Amino acid sequence: MEHEPLLMIPGPVPVPQRVRAAMTQQAINHRGPEFGAAYADTVRILKTLFGTENELYIISGSGTAGMEAGVANFARDRSIVSLVNGKFGDRFAKIGERYGSSVTVLESDWGTPLDLEGLERELEAGAEVVTMVHNETSAGIKNPAPEVGKLARKHDALFIMDGVTSIGGDDVQMDRWGVDIAVVGSQKCLAAPAGLAAIAVGERAWDRIAEKRPFYQDMAAYRKSGSKAAMETPYTPAVPLFLALHEACKMIEEEGVPARIARHRRMADAVRAAAKGWGVDLFPELDAHHAYSNTATAMRIPDGVTDQALRGTVKKFGIEIAGGQDHLKGKIFRIGTMGSVGAQEILATAAAVQYALQKSGFAAGEGVEAAAEVLLG
Amino acid sequence: MEHEPLLMIPGPVPVPQRVRAAMTQQAINHRGPEFGAAYADTVRILKTLFGTENELYIISGSGTAGMEAGVANFARDRSIVSLVNGKFGDRFAKIGERYGSSVTVLESDWGTPLDLEGLERELEAGAEVVTMVHNETSAGIKNPAPEVGKLARKHDALFIMDGVTSIGGDDVQMDRWGVDIAVVGSQKCLAAPAGLAAIAVGERAWDRIAEKRPFYQDMAAYRKSGSKAAMETPYTPAVPLFLALHEACKMIEEEGVPARIARHRRMADAVRAAAKGWGVDLFPELDAHHAYSNTATAMRIPDGVTDQALRGTVKKFGIEIAGGQDHLKGKIFRIGTMGSVGAQEILATAAAVQYALQKSGFAAGEGVEAAAEVLLG
Repeated sequence: MEHEPLLMIPGPVPVPQRVRAAMTQQAINHRGPEFGAAYADTVRILKTLFGTENELYIISGSGTAGMEAGVANFARDRSIVSLVNGKFGDRFAKIGERYGSSVTVLESDWGTPLDLEGLERELEAGAEVVTMVHNETSAGIKNPAPEVGKLARKHDALFIMDGVTSIGGDDVQMDRWGVDIAVVGSQKCLAAPAGLAAIAVGERAWDRIAEKRPFYQDMAAYRKSGSKAAMETPYTPAVPLFLALHEACKMIEEEGVPARIARHRRMADAVRAAAKGWGVDLFPELDAHHAYSNTATAMRIPDGVTDQALRGTVKKFGIEIAGGQDHLKGKIFRIGTMGSVGAQEILATAAAVQYALQKSGFAAGEGVEAAAEVLLG
Repeated sequence: MEHEPLLMIPGPVPVPQRVRAAMTQQAINHRGPEFGAAYADTVRILKTLFGTENELYIISGSGTAGMEAGVANFARDRSIVSLVNGKFGDRFAKIGERYGSSVTVLESDWGTPLDLEGLERELEAGAEVVTMVHNETSAGIKNPAPEVGKLARKHDALFIMDGVTSIGGDDVQMDRWGVDIAVVGSQKCLAAPAGLAAIAVGERAWDRIAEKRPFYQDMAAYRKSGSKAAMETPYTPAVPLFLALHEACKMIEEEGVPARIARHRRMADAVRAAAKGWGVDLFPELDAHHAYSNTATAMRIPDGVTDQALRGTVKKFGIEIAGGQDHLKGKIFRIGTMGSVGAQEILATAAAVQYALQKSGFAAGEGVEAAAEVLLG
């Protein structure tokens, strides 16, 4: 057996061999029909994952570059209200602070429900843009995109949604929910390598594009180059990553989008069942509007167990799970179930975690068995 | 024989198999020692190509993203003087216009000498930043970086140099020349895939970093993440491209920097000899401060020959050469000689061009033979 590390973190995720092999093709001219066709076909498939008929473009950069593109092009010098209940919501607020005329941060404790009442108040007071992270991997919580979209539309505000870790793994309906700008990263549920961000932009947003825009992330430039007969990017794209993402999208189409989302849900269900079996608490505190993330599960580290002992032991099996970020370091651990993850990876990871918990003196129950039941479900 | 297209354009360039193979490695955690070591070793080798002991960081994005990083971090709200004699100089000026307090564009016809007297005048009048493209592939001209660096230092201005298509293929001495910020792209002379930009920043620039900076291209964030024990990037990097660039840098070190530069010069010499043999005019008009590019040769399309006939015929052999950009479309053609290009590629390209010229009714002389003599020289 090959001993590649198994990344069970909330991205980057293991990349299927077919996708990696696509990168070994010799360099092609990025201003030509072969590249244009691959770009266009990738866009076509991504639109089905975004649930949108909006224009969609791909930026050579991380998900953060895509989030910044959304804010810098469409929220510049506008009043922004930023919903925060985790690290990436916090990052979105920080990006807003560099561009908005004002930013009101509605901050909840990480992993707890967003302040929807506060949002409505801000919108009534005239906020022009709402930013929200759909799936907050730092805390394992899924935020209520349809509700937020409805509120934003009611008050004629733009809704910019970070779908970096939900699109391709969980149900996203950009158009139906009233999302004006949505962003995904390549290295999460799409199971492609890190380095690309896709951004879909609706008509309401295009109508409000800022006059003063960044250069590399200038969405008007992407629109212009993307409308050529052979689709192009305004600046040299990361060609191997485009070819890899195209291959990953073809695999998604072969699996089928509903089947893929069902698989992601089953994998996350299995991890949650394992946690219950072990007697380990899930981290998020939910209400009727919020749900557990279906792509990353955050759990509290039990008393008496250290982060180092837990993840260190798991790593001895070649499996990487994630710890907590920032103030949650040492308090939670996280298991990502994105991309091409299947039963074998879940079983191996659950077994390793159960062993590590027990070795640390925690009387973990039969989590592996509970996960197995869900996987066979 | 494998029938991969041979890209003889001014980047992207053919990528050696070893470099492409490096991308097939399974995803690794980008916040760990393996990635950190690869990043640090790449930086070490790149510094020798930049001729610098300055800090150097790698951005997941194109060369343009790197140029914007230089301007947005270090020229924001400052008075910029922008030297232009080609498409990329023009782009640099456009980026300056989005960030500078004022931009004075000193424009020469494409492929003709920069206005150094005008530069001195602007510097005396208090310009704070100079931008220049070292190697202007759109016109096949190499601009006088040492002279510009000297002038900038004399007047205490920052000098931001686009070395996207010179660094790694031609001699660059950032520190000795007085360059404060220099940028290279991965897909040019380094012979790695497109998608990364490396930016080196000197102390004089760090001392003047803007308070208001972009987010994704925030150089202070790169500096902070880059100073960790295991080097990191602030946002998720394009991991396969980093691994490929590291492999490309190892190949550069094996070849040796002086040998690599000598090879690039010989290849460009061979193309220039071919042009002379054919009776085709080189496009640039030089003076004592300027030189022909050693990585891309621009030639006038002879009367009676069309761009389409010339490049179309060459393409039938699986070889892509470049046309003119913008107002030079149909007037010039360009042959890139960057990266791993050797005698075989030059001979094949010269033979194809000579055939195409003759087929178009142009009485081309013995360019292939002249190139061959240089290659053996």
